[in-house]
Amino acid sequence: MSFHGMWAELLPVGRSFASGGYRRFAWTGADAECRAWFREQAESRGLAYEADRNGNQWAWLGDPAAGDAVVTGSHLDSVPDGGAFDGPLGVVSSFAALDELRARGARFTKPLAVVNFGDEEGARFGLACVGSRLTAGHLTVEQAHRLTDADGVTLPKAMEAAGYDPEAIGPDPERLARIGAFVELHVEQGRALDLTGDAVGVAGAIWPHGRWRFDFRGEANHAGTTRLVDRHDPMLSYAETVLAARREAALAGAVATFGKIAVEPNGVNAIPSLVRGWLDSRAADQPTLDTVVTGIEKAAREYAAAHGVDLDVVRESFTPVVEFDHALRDELARILGTGGGDGRDREIRVPVLGTGAGHDAGILSGSIPTAMLFVRNPTGVSHSPAEFAAEDDCVAGVRALADVLEGLACT
Amino acid sequence: MSFHGMWAELLPVGRSFASGGYRRFAWTGADAECRAWFREQAESRGLAYEADRNGNQWAWLGDPAAGDAVVTGSHLDSVPDGGAFDGPLGVVSSFAALDELRARGARFTKPLAVVNFGDEEGARFGLACVGSRLTAGHLTVEQAHRLTDADGVTLPKAMEAAGYDPEAIGPDPERLARIGAFVELHVEQGRALDLTGDAVGVAGAIWPHGRWRFDFRGEANHAGTTRLVDRHDPMLSYAETVLAARREAALAGAVATFGKIAVEPNGVNAIPSLVRGWLDSRAADQPTLDTVVTGIEKAAREYAAAHGVDLDVVRESFTPVVEFDHALRDELARILGTGGGDGRDREIRVPVLGTGAGHDAGILSGSIPTAMLFVRNPTGVSHSPAEFAAEDDCVAGVRALADVLEGLACT
Repeated sequence: MSFHGMWAELLPVGRSFASGGYRRFAWTGADAECRAWFREQAESRGLAYEADRNGNQWAWLGDPAAGDAVVTGSHLDSVPDGGAFDGPLGVVSSFAALDELRARGARFTKPLAVVNFGDEEGARFGLACVGSRLTAGHLTVEQAHRLTDADGVTLPKAMEAAGYDPEAIGPDPERLARIGAFVELHVEQGRALDLTGDAVGVAGAIWPHGRWRFDFRGEANHAGTTRLVDRHDPMLSYAETVLAARREAALAGAVATFGKIAVEPNGVNAIPSLVRGWLDSRAADQPTLDTVVTGIEKAAREYAAAHGVDLDVVRESFTPVVEFDHALRDELARILGTGGGDGRDREIRVPVLGTGAGHDAGILSGSIPTAMLFVRNPTGVSHSPAEFAAEDDCVAGVRALADVLEGLACT
Repeated sequence: MSFHGMWAELLPVGRSFASGGYRRFAWTGADAECRAWFREQAESRGLAYEADRNGNQWAWLGDPAAGDAVVTGSHLDSVPDGGAFDGPLGVVSSFAALDELRARGARFTKPLAVVNFGDEEGARFGLACVGSRLTAGHLTVEQAHRLTDADGVTLPKAMEAAGYDPEAIGPDPERLARIGAFVELHVEQGRALDLTGDAVGVAGAIWPHGRWRFDFRGEANHAGTTRLVDRHDPMLSYAETVLAARREAALAGAVATFGKIAVEPNGVNAIPSLVRGWLDSRAADQPTLDTVVTGIEKAAREYAAAHGVDLDVVRESFTPVVEFDHALRDELARILGTGGGDGRDREIRVPVLGTGAGHDAGILSGSIPTAMLFVRNPTGVSHSPAEFAAEDDCVAGVRALADVLEGLACT
C-alpha cells in the first residue's frame, strides 16, 4: 500500500467530529484500531509481526535474533485533539521507506524493523513514553501499575481490557541488545526548518524539560456575598503565576506554559477552594531551566502568601538534556549529504536542530544509538488539529529515511 | 420529628466523602433522596403532599384552593461541594416552625404550605432557580428544554429519568394566584449579622447580578517547541482578565469572581486552543454593576488583542435588583419587633440586610409578596463544606419564622 493509501486509512481513526483533532489515547478503541492497522501493514508486506511485553508493536524483515538490527518507527497515539502527523507520519514513512528500498532492489545485510511505541503522548495516564520507558527500564513495573486515568481506571485494567497482560510488563534488555540503531522520523514541532528553507533536518539534542503541579488551596465561598477582603481566592494567585511564568521564560529564552488546569468546585457562583495548574517548562540547558522554574515558584509563593492561599509545588516528571548519538548523527548527515545510500547525486543540506519535544528516541538514547529526522512544519503548529506538513516534504522525508536505512542496513 | 431529627436525616444525603461537601444536583439520585425525605416529612405531619408541574414540592395545611395562602420554604439542592445549610436550613426550619405553631395551639385562618423549590442552585444545568423561574414564567418551556448538563444530558431527559414529565413544565399562574405571601428563611451568606451581633435579620433587597461567559480562543500548539513570539495563548489573556476583574470590583465596592473554567484541550504539554471562563459579578445597584462589567470586558478585549486571541463575551443570565415587598417586610419587622405573633414580650432587633445572593424568593417577588429571614453565619462562609450556623441561632431562626407565620396566618 502506498504512502497515500496508508495515510488515507489512518486519517479517520480516532478523529473527533467536534474538534477535527485526534483522540487516540492508550488502550482505547481508537488505539486498538491503530494497532490493527499496524499489524495489517506488517503482514501485508510479509514482515514478521509481534507485540512485545510492553505493548509496543514490531514488524520484522530478517531475523530479529541476528543482532545489530536497524529499527525505525514512531507512535500512533495522540494528545487530546492532536494533529494527524505527530507520530503517524513516522510510522507511515517507515513502511513507505521500506517499500522504496525494496523498489530500489536494496540488499539488506542487517535485520530491519518498523516499530510503533505504545502510549507515547501520555494523554491518558499523564506520563509520556510509557512503552519505551518500560522497555528501557526507566519506569518500574510498580510505578506503571499505579498509573491511573481521569476516570480512575488503572493502567493494568486498561491493558487488560485491550487484551494485553499487565503482569508481563517490564524492562526488556534482550530486545534492546539486538538493536544497532534506532531512527525516528517526526514532523517538526516548530518552525526551524521553515526558517532555514529545508524539507528535512537531523536532531541534535532534546532540551531538558519537566512538568510541575502547582496546587493553590484557598477557601471556597459564595461569589455573591463574600466581601473581597474576606476572600482567599486561589484563582487570583494562579492567574498571577501564569503571567509570571511567561515573564520568566521570556527573560531566559526558554518556554513555560500553563496549559492544564483543574478547579474545585468549579462553580460559576463559588470562589474556588482549589486551583491546580500544571507548568510545562523547557530550556536549552539545565541551568537555564532551573532559573526559570525557581523564578516562577518564588513568584507563586509570594502571590499565594499575599492572598492567604496555601501552595504546594510537586515536580511530576523530569527529563534531563538528551544528546543523540554523535556517531550516528554524523553518519546520517554523511548519508544525506552525499545524496543518499543509493549513491545518486543529490544536493541535500541537513541542518541539525535542537528540540523542546520529548520522544521515544530520547528515552532509548540512553540504551542504544538513536537518531531523529524532522520533516518541515510550515506553520510550526503541533498538538492541534491544524498541525500540517506539505506532501512534497513528506515525500522528501520518506526518501531521506530510505536513504538512511539503506546506508545503515544495506550493502 | 424534631429539628434535630430532621437535620440528622438529611445530613448524609449526597455528601461527598472526599470533600465533605454536598453534591445534591437537580434530578440526580441525591436529589431524589432529598425529595423522598420532603414527602415523608409532609405525610408524617398529615399535610397534603403534591409535586407541581415544574417539580417543586408542596406540603399543605388547609385547603390550597381557599386562596391567600401563606407559604414558607426554600430548596434542598446544592452547589458542587456546597454546605449543609444553604437551602436545607429553610426547609427544615419551615417544618419545625409549623410544629412549634401546633405546639403553641395556634388557630390557622389561612392555608399554609411548606415548599421545596427544584434546582435552585443551577449546579447541573447552569441556570439558577429553574423551578421558580418556570413557575413565574421567567423561563420559557423552549429555553428549559434546551438546558444541557456537562455530560450532554438535557433537562427533559434528566426529569424523565427522575420520573417527572418534562412536557408538563411551564408557567403556573393559578398556583401563584392562591398565595398571599411567601417567606423564605436562609442562612446568611456573609457576615453582616455577625458584625451587628444579631441572630436573625430581614432581607431588604437582592443586589442585581449576572453571569458572563468569556471565550478566549487562541491556537493550540506544542508547549515545548513553540516559540513564545509564535504563540496565541488564551491562558495569558484569561489570567490578565481574572486580575482585572478583581481590580474593577475593588474600585467599585462590588464583587466579581472567576470561579469556573473550561480549557481545551487541557493537556500539560499543549498551549490551549480555548480558555472559557465564567464571570459572576454583583453590586448594590445597576449603574455600579454596569461599570464593573464594562471595565472588565474592555480590559479583556485589550489583553486578547495583544496576544492575537479572539474573545467572545456572552451574558448567560442576569437578574435586576430585587426589592422585597415593603409592606410584608415591615409586617415581619413589626411581628419580630413586638416579640412575635403570640403577643409574648421579647426584645428582638431585626436588622434589614441587602444581599448579593439570588433566591427563589427573589424570582417570585415579581409575582407575589415575598420576604426573607436570614440566620447568622459566624464565618460568612457559604457554598463550601465549611458553611456553618450555630445551633442557638438556628433555634432562634425557627422561633422567628414561627412568629412570622403566626402573625400572617393565625388569629
